[in-house]
Amino acid sequence: MARQPNPIRSDIAWSTRDRITVRGRDLPNQILGHMNLGDFAFLQLTGREATPRQSAVFNAIIITLVEHGLTPSAIAARLTYAGAPESMQAAVAAGLCGLGSVFVGSMEDAARLLSEALPLGQDHSKADLQAIAREQVAAYRQAKKILPGMGHPIHKPVDPRAPRLFEIAAENGVAGPYVRLIQEIAAEAERVHGRALPVNATGAIGAICCELGFPWKIVRGFGVMARAIGLVGHILEESENPIAREIWLRVDDEASAHLRPA
Amino acid sequence: MARQPNPIRSDIAWSTRDRITVRGRDLPNQILGHMNLGDFAFLQLTGREATPRQSAVFNAIIITLVEHGLTPSAIAARLTYAGAPESMQAAVAAGLCGLGSVFVGSMEDAARLLSEALPLGQDHSKADLQAIAREQVAAYRQAKKILPGMGHPIHKPVDPRAPRLFEIAAENGVAGPYVRLIQEIAAEAERVHGRALPVNATGAIGAICCELGFPWKIVRGFGVMARAIGLVGHILEESENPIAREIWLRVDDEASAHLRPA
Amino acid sequence: MARQPNPIRSDIAWSTRDRITVRGRDLPNQILGHMNLGDFAFLQLTGREATPRQSAVFNAIIITLVEHGLTPSAIAARLTYAGAPESMQAAVAAGLCGLGSVFVGSMEDAARLLSEALPLGQDHSKADLQAIAREQVAAYRQAKKILPGMGHPIHKPVDPRAPRLFEIAAENGVAGPYVRLIQEIAAEAERVHGRALPVNATGAIGAICCELGFPWKIVRGFGVMARAIGLVGHILEESENPIAREIWLRVDDEASAHLRPA
Amino acid sequence: MARQPNPIRSDIAWSTRDRITVRGRDLPNQILGHMNLGDFAFLQLTGREATPRQSAVFNAIIITLVEHGLTPSAIAARLTYAGAPESMQAAVAAGLCGLGSVFVGSMEDAARLLSEALPLGQDHSKADLQAIAREQVAAYRQAKKILPGMGHPIHKPVDPRAPRLFEIAAENGVAGPYVRLIQEIAAEAERVHGRALPVNATGAIGAICCELGFPWKIVRGFGVMARAIGLVGHILEESENPIAREIWLRVDDEASAHLRPA
Repeated sequence: MARQPNPIRSDIAWSTRDRITVRGRDLPNQILGHMNLGDFAFLQLTGREATPRQSAVFNAIIITLVEHGLTPSAIAARLTYAGAPESMQAAVAAGLCGLGSVFVGSMEDAARLLSEALPLGQDHSKADLQAIAREQVAAYRQAKKILPGMGHPIHKPVDPRAPRLFEIAAENGVAGPYVRLIQEIAAEAERVHGRALPVNATGAIGAICCELGFPWKIVRGFGVMARAIGLVGHILEESENPIAREIWLRVDDEASAHLRPA
Repeated sequence: MARQPNPIRSDIAWSTRDRITVRGRDLPNQILGHMNLGDFAFLQLTGREATPRQSAVFNAIIITLVEHGLTPSAIAARLTYAGAPESMQAAVAAGLCGLGSVFVGSMEDAARLLSEALPLGQDHSKADLQAIAREQVAAYRQAKKILPGMGHPIHKPVDPRAPRLFEIAAENGVAGPYVRLIQEIAAEAERVHGRALPVNATGAIGAICCELGFPWKIVRGFGVMARAIGLVGHILEESENPIAREIWLRVDDEASAHLRPA
Repeated sequence: MARQPNPIRSDIAWSTRDRITVRGRDLPNQILGHMNLGDFAFLQLTGREATPRQSAVFNAIIITLVEHGLTPSAIAARLTYAGAPESMQAAVAAGLCGLGSVFVGSMEDAARLLSEALPLGQDHSKADLQAIAREQVAAYRQAKKILPGMGHPIHKPVDPRAPRLFEIAAENGVAGPYVRLIQEIAAEAERVHGRALPVNATGAIGAICCELGFPWKIVRGFGVMARAIGLVGHILEESENPIAREIWLRVDDEASAHLRPA
Repeated sequence: MARQPNPIRSDIAWSTRDRITVRGRDLPNQILGHMNLGDFAFLQLTGREATPRQSAVFNAIIITLVEHGLTPSAIAARLTYAGAPESMQAAVAAGLCGLGSVFVGSMEDAARLLSEALPLGQDHSKADLQAIAREQVAAYRQAKKILPGMGHPIHKPVDPRAPRLFEIAAENGVAGPYVRLIQEIAAEAERVHGRALPVNATGAIGAICCELGFPWKIVRGFGVMARAIGLVGHILEESENPIAREIWLRVDDEASAHLRPA
């Protein structure tokens, strides 16, 4: 008995001989020259045009995620480019492959924690945020899990991106219950753990993504698309001032020194 | 004798406990809330802030490259996501891996042709563009190579993105010798081949990238970073309305039908 | 205060002007011509040479994982190759990116379940395997989780690879408590769920990997390295009899048919 | 007018409820327990079973390509694993992405040079190999291109893998005109350039692949599938004795030292 086929369907874009349409807008005439890249990303992802306030906040979030120096991701991209300079796309791809639980996970985890505590699309104006914060901190403590979006190994006492992102969110009317809840959680965590644990950039972004209505599953994607831009910058620099070969030679030499005959 | 180490050096970004700096600008205070994503990409790549006119043209170019429907790249990303939904970054990476000679190559090739004919950073106001166009068309014809950036398998008679991109470039004073040269080449190609070969989107982008001073080697990177955004959109849709499994079952079933016993 | 550097050290390989050594063996003289690829993989991974019996079982396991027809992984690799035929390595990489929780996860999960129930490197000759099986089935049922390594959507009533792998393991003295435990679990699951749930290939491989002493974390890697071989075969066929373009055109056409003007 | 669909067809494998068949052989009963991994790779790629002599030579070639120490590819894979340890497959993929023109290219280029000089599948017993060698060396010299498969930056005076691979080929009757031609080319290059340029491992492999009848386009794939095995070994070691984090911290620290305020 043959399998009954299911339809294959996508609502993002279509084109004909003379038209190219994305999310229902004519690309040449309604989009090009009328939007910036961040706003177009918002349209591509949501199917809606960003309001000016959403645009300000969304652009700030994505920009925050573009460039973090010579991260493992950037080094991996440069090493890959050194072996296959004719395939820059594969070097960017290699750099993206490492954006997993360790680096973008805390942003995703923060958005998940917040949106499971306060489901998206509901009225949370009467929620007891302090009580929720106490419950969450206690639950994480009992499970011996690390609260996402708090503290930072380098940026002390405060990750300077977080207060700035909260400021931009507040200026644009996008600082609601999720922003307050993550701040309550940080305050409770500080009280319980007896040390400074301010909200960091990933926590701020996780909270603001909830304010904008994004499901937590897509939050990691913001880091991925932002970092693709950053990695192209690293590869351009690598093509002009290469460092990958030097990294390789140093690492290979040191790593096997204890094995090689004297 | 030990190898003399070379320095490892990058000029893109640095951070300390309380500061995060990209291309010499304080990220939280000078960039966030003050730039859109396209302009920050321009800064990340060039080290310079885009003028308002450069911003308008650059944002239009990158936006053009974000979304082209269910391309092989988008389908590959969705199939990858179906197998590893916990690793969205790897699905985007898989989609980027195919942005090679067939799909983004013509944009790169167009920029290369133009910048080799008219080297970047020189005055070309007295160049005989018609003569160069004749030489190029003859050279490609003799080598039996396809001229990059002309004609389109679907968009006929004209790729509607190209005239719009030229219009945006002209409005912003970024339509100089490279834009004129590719149009001369297209006109000469039409004359020689006896059929319509208008400049397509990749040809327009290749030319405008030269106008903006970008070396041809980085032009492919614009396609890569733009498509990363588009692929996140496809994966978000795949998570909500999956099609990958259906594609798999149909293809696997049909491909081996001639081998299976009746 | 400067960070104190940690050593960078690897025990896998070293080379000098005239010698190339892997896992302590001289590659040209002690390995080439003396080992098959499966045995060398065993050496590369474990640092030990496989005994003839380990060799028989290990080669069978890896071979089982090489080729499964036009999987999402194989289709993604072919679509990627169609866009970047000059970067075959990136096409294989794209195909590997999808070997995550959905496809190789059950093999990993089976090995994990078994090695957590019966820790590696201990004597389990007196373990009450039936009791453990009852506990595990009850625990998965209560957590509403699917037991890994049992049943199969296509191969019914029995995945023919599983009994053959168990046979090879038994013939080579590698069928101990892990093989018995997974069979007990399957028997208990059949009893509880009232339907046939025989051990499938991933369950058999998970169990045999435990017999060979491999930690569950590396079991996924066996699938990855095996599939890389299979994907090269698919790309070779794609280069001779391409199907990617046809898949693309069909999918793109059908997916946006409901959007395009009539 | 609707497009006429083309068939989608693959000859590699098929399966039904009770059978799994690869290249016409029943996987459980005719392959498992009867072949080693290298021989199965040969079958998967060619559709033919390797003779014992082909098996000996093919296994040696692939093994040669598995492990080369802490290459850029291995470092990239480890850095990727550090960010996404839950996605080992993506770490292997990242490592493979760099196997391009710089690292596996010379093997491919050698096979291409040889098979264009002596087309596969023809009788070359009367070819004047010395004359061909003179032509090729002169042609590369005039084009200012580097002859592939000769010399080595580390292994001096001789890459010890090359003579061993030639020995294995000769012992198995697989050292014919391609092996002789690359040796003639190396001799001619040494004469012309006045310095030692012995055939290296990539040259030997390129030549032996031609002897085995493989088209040059697939030769890169041998490096890709072999390295996937090696990378799984590196990731297993990284999971036990990590070095990626140390590489990251050292590189990031040194690279931006000149930018950070004192």
